Amino acid sequence: MAMQIIFLGTSCMIPTKQRNTSAILLRYKNENILLDCGEGTQRQFMMSKYSFMRITKIFITHYHGDHFLGLSGLIQSMNLNDRENDLEIYGPPGTIQTISTMLRLGYFGAGFKIMLHDLKDNEAVTFDKYDVKAFQVDHSVPTFGYVLQEHTRPGKFNLKKAKALGIPAGPLYRKLQSGKSIEINGKKITPDMVLGPPRCGRKIVISGDTKPCEAVIKNAKDADVLIHDACLDSSLEAKAAAYGHSTARQAAEVAKKAKAKLLFLIHHSPRYKDLSILEEEAKAVFENSVAAVDFLTYQVRFLS
Amino acid sequence: MAMQIIFLGTSCMIPTKQRNTSAILLRYKNENILLDCGEGTQRQFMMSKYSFMRITKIFITHYHGDHFLGLSGLIQSMNLNDRENDLEIYGPPGTIQTISTMLRLGYFGAGFKIMLHDLKDNEAVTFDKYDVKAFQVDHSVPTFGYVLQEHTRPGKFNLKKAKALGIPAGPLYRKLQSGKSIEINGKKITPDMVLGPPRCGRKIVISGDTKPCEAVIKNAKDADVLIHDACLDSSLEAKAAAYGHSTARQAAEVAKKAKAKLLFLIHHSPRYKDLSILEEEAKAVFENSVAAVDFLTYQVRFLS
Repeated sequence: MAMQIIFLGTSCMIPTKQRNTSAILLRYKNENILLDCGEGTQRQFMMSKYSFMRITKIFITHYHGDHFLGLSGLIQSMNLNDRENDLEIYGPPGTIQTISTMLRLGYFGAGFKIMLHDLKDNEAVTFDKYDVKAFQVDHSVPTFGYVLQEHTRPGKFNLKKAKALGIPAGPLYRKLQSGKSIEINGKKITPDMVLGPPRCGRKIVISGDTKPCEAVIKNAKDADVLIHDACLDSSLEAKAAAYGHSTARQAAEVAKKAKAKLLFLIHHSPRYKDLSILEEEAKAVFENSVAAVDFLTYQVRFLS
Repeated sequence: MAMQIIFLGTSCMIPTKQRNTSAILLRYKNENILLDCGEGTQRQFMMSKYSFMRITKIFITHYHGDHFLGLSGLIQSMNLNDRENDLEIYGPPGTIQTISTMLRLGYFGAGFKIMLHDLKDNEAVTFDKYDVKAFQVDHSVPTFGYVLQEHTRPGKFNLKKAKALGIPAGPLYRKLQSGKSIEINGKKITPDMVLGPPRCGRKIVISGDTKPCEAVIKNAKDADVLIHDACLDSSLEAKAAAYGHSTARQAAEVAKKAKAKLLFLIHHSPRYKDLSILEEEAKAVFENSVAAVDFLTYQVRFLS
């Protein structure tokens, strides 16, 4: 199943001409999962080829303005476009109170159901084919990183073994692949007889705004993709620390320790017009580093 | 003194790729007055050549999201940029409660003073060289239009008369022009002896979201510029009325009845990519009609 990451806003604190404040879209199956929603995110959707009407779930990392102020406008526009589907919004403690207050501002009432959830540190929510786990990181206010872990998939179908067992190609193959046993000429054939070992699902981790911390290293272990705060370059490490952020090099060190496969740097200070200084210092530590820009789209492929 | 109108957002309800939600900047003397502040207004400033740091006063017409949801982000960004000057925000009843609640969302505290004012229907606020008067219009929720009326200026300086009276060119001319009497060879000369009749100040009127109504016609009497809701074209007049809006033709009829000098159509439905249908039907009724687009800038000149 295709899984895509679309960076809709990669600026830190304040938008710039080139970059909007935080928002990332994760597309997976029929789901469009939004991670953070800075002011103007609805318009970023319009500038992309994706519709905000298809958003199914929103996860907020924390309640600094550049991560959630776009929620009101987004939800009001969903309403204007006659959304009927429920919308689930998850975030750190305070989510229910903050967003319910926000949605009562001015004259507005949503015509669809919005479910707000305060998550706890290390709490995981299980969905059809994946879990999302929140974990507390090290920022100036309570902030979550998130792990999206796709469930383990059945092993690869071994065509040779299936043929040797005399199973005819077609629906029986699919049944075995989906984990069910079949019977051929009175003989029971179990999935493990034709499938390889179960394969790990994909794992995407977002750090939220954070100083480099153990919680991200631990939770991003072997992640296919780590998306990490990279607010400043190393010459400004003290400043980054003072504000609870990471430098690009620190983000790369976290990725390296976690043995992540790919690192996207986000949340760039408005001072950088050209992001190559950030990407280069990250690459020096962790080769598979990319400084994400607005509208960058990445297809997360299965590695096994 | 130069007076400029910069349209920063001309879309209705929801942004489009081309147009953002409502915001108009009025520049006058050292003042930068913002009329409404839809989501993303701070970024519209960045796309223009004007700085949101110089905003002195904000007037909100009403509390539908597309007119005020950009306030939080704008104010937070002013704070990040170390604003020290006070900020005055005026609006209809509910302004103090709505905006103070809005500014308490998430983790934020402004380092500068924000003064919130609930205005009443027909209440005028007097500033150094102009007044702003609020007046209730006819929308689906309590909504104000605003009149910005520049104070009456002294009459034109009559050089011939001044020379005939033996006044030497220079500082004495300026003193008379500013309304003070002088003495030449023991003879008192009063300003009326060298100045023409007092000249009316410029008058700018914004309708807010409204159906065509008497309150706008009355308050926009002889306005130099009327900025009027023109959500839809005449083929959709019933729809416009149902939502408390005007068609472009109705806006033009209001401008004509008010004997305004120039009409800007704003608050265009996202359905119009090309605004010529709106401009043309307005022009058929009132020749001096312009459909405003984002970043259109107009210099309001003295007509007398």
